[in-house]
Amino acid sequence: MPSGPEEGYDRVIAILEKVAAQVQGEPCVTYLGRGSAGHYVKMVHNGIEYGLMQLLAETYDIMKRGLGLNNEELHEVYSHWKYTEISSYLVDITANIFSRKDEKTGTALIDVILDEAGQKGTGKWTSWDALDLQVPTPTIDMAVMMRDLSGYKTERKAASETLAGPDTTYKGDRASLIDQLKHALYAGMIMTYAQGMALIKRASTTYDYHLDLEAVARIWRGGCIIRAALLEDLRIAFKSHPGLPNLLLDPPLGREVQGRQADLRSMVQVAAALGLPVPCLMASLAYFDAYRNGWLPANLIQAQRDYFGAHAYRRTDEAGTFHTAWVED
Amino acid sequence: MPSGPEEGYDRVIAILEKVAAQVQGEPCVTYLGRGSAGHYVKMVHNGIEYGLMQLLAETYDIMKRGLGLNNEELHEVYSHWKYTEISSYLVDITANIFSRKDEKTGTALIDVILDEAGQKGTGKWTSWDALDLQVPTPTIDMAVMMRDLSGYKTERKAASETLAGPDTTYKGDRASLIDQLKHALYAGMIMTYAQGMALIKRASTTYDYHLDLEAVARIWRGGCIIRAALLEDLRIAFKSHPGLPNLLLDPPLGREVQGRQADLRSMVQVAAALGLPVPCLMASLAYFDAYRNGWLPANLIQAQRDYFGAHAYRRTDEAGTFHTAWVED
Repeated sequence: MPSGPEEGYDRVIAILEKVAAQVQGEPCVTYLGRGSAGHYVKMVHNGIEYGLMQLLAETYDIMKRGLGLNNEELHEVYSHWKYTEISSYLVDITANIFSRKDEKTGTALIDVILDEAGQKGTGKWTSWDALDLQVPTPTIDMAVMMRDLSGYKTERKAASETLAGPDTTYKGDRASLIDQLKHALYAGMIMTYAQGMALIKRASTTYDYHLDLEAVARIWRGGCIIRAALLEDLRIAFKSHPGLPNLLLDPPLGREVQGRQADLRSMVQVAAALGLPVPCLMASLAYFDAYRNGWLPANLIQAQRDYFGAHAYRRTDEAGTFHTAWVED
Repeated sequence: MPSGPEEGYDRVIAILEKVAAQVQGEPCVTYLGRGSAGHYVKMVHNGIEYGLMQLLAETYDIMKRGLGLNNEELHEVYSHWKYTEISSYLVDITANIFSRKDEKTGTALIDVILDEAGQKGTGKWTSWDALDLQVPTPTIDMAVMMRDLSGYKTERKAASETLAGPDTTYKGDRASLIDQLKHALYAGMIMTYAQGMALIKRASTTYDYHLDLEAVARIWRGGCIIRAALLEDLRIAFKSHPGLPNLLLDPPLGREVQGRQADLRSMVQVAAALGLPVPCLMASLAYFDAYRNGWLPANLIQAQRDYFGAHAYRRTDEAGTFHTAWVED
């Protein structure tokens, strides 16, 4: 639990509470913790934002190139999604974006915007620190990676002339694919928040922030880019279990993901078949499948490391570290 | 081209050339470039190593849990693979690992090794610097992530009790799946080297290393962990086109990947269906599909960034940066 604001902060917070956005009568601002705690939480907020934006871009790609939806149809889909479980600011503005006309050409503005994504660095910092604290944040990492990759437009154009892929047209039922896509997106969203929150939790211990994760979820419910209906579920999860190590271990949220895993698997399979890049849907699925497995093939990696570098391994049946003289075999 | 060793280095290199491993009569050691050039190349070598090891672990998982192969059968498969296009030191030692008996229990040693992978940090440094230089290295990033995730054994065990996945048993033809898996692995290997080499190329410019990529490929052919038959193809690629921005743009290597893309897609689909985590196969496929696409949905990300943060965007039809007053819409 936070030890309370440092001296002088209480007045600042009292003012902010009056002017800040409110959700369910509660202000979307609070004292978070010691030192750089507030900056850190804002950094991870942005990392999550990168993940959600790339997930949305992947749904756009599947509907545009896979299903051939035009911008009016895309506007309709995202406008509908605004009123479902994925209700969020980013879905909201995505719906608006597809209905916006370009003043210069009169066509849809989205189609004259160059497909090279910029960044200010906060996503990169999130991935950096996640690597340093050894907290897996694959959906965020792949979102940062895709912004970088989008910038290689010249190389991409050159590659597109020699490296042909499959036909991107989806042959199955459109309506059911769109429904599956929404479920896959929601699962991916939960996984992105789960990764970000796990990072904040680890950072709180490592950097002595004394963060209250329920408070983080509470203030994110309004006034920020990643506000979403889902954040109330996150708040309740941390209220029920303040020490929750990962949101996937919260029974209600775990069930939400589990109930959508079949659709997430299908979307990954469809995109793989059509040649549409969905690194964040894939990373979300891989994260889910790795996290929920009591056994992983990392024993082979330990064997290899011991084989070539005598890095030693641990055993399943005995404490300590062990080395095998493999090459004498 | 390297400007030549700094004073005093020439004698050291002459000695190393005599004692180092040789491939086709050429020593596997050379002066690489200015300043920290040699250390940097070794760091990326290790990043590639992380990628290759995780890719191998994923093939192990698919054959163990998907096909139910025992250690003797796994030994046979990897022993066969040693003599195919994926011939490499890591495949070689993997074959040996599966035939090794544990002295204490008399069972296969691989089965008593704990599935938590350690690391010394070189993979993390590679991902860090790739993020900083904005060079996409998703296969390497996901390999580092999976080592971190493997360490969450307690959480994984807890999650395995509540988050059930699909039946991991593959129902199709075993022999053809193993063949597809080998092709997918080879494609993933090429993608891993392509990412690492692209990073080295960018670093050479940024840090003024004056690296010769053909020389890097040449010395990696022997005496190091990532030595592989494939490295001669890399060397030839950089000899043919010293300025090659990415190995996927080398016509022969591009064809090798393209000819195996169907198998890579199938393996991602199979693993997704069976609930087996294959983040590196997935990241390799996403990298391929993103890199070879002249258009990506990053225009949506730019629209979102301009919508919520007035970060501006570029247009497809006009130079400069532009901002739209979205909220007035």
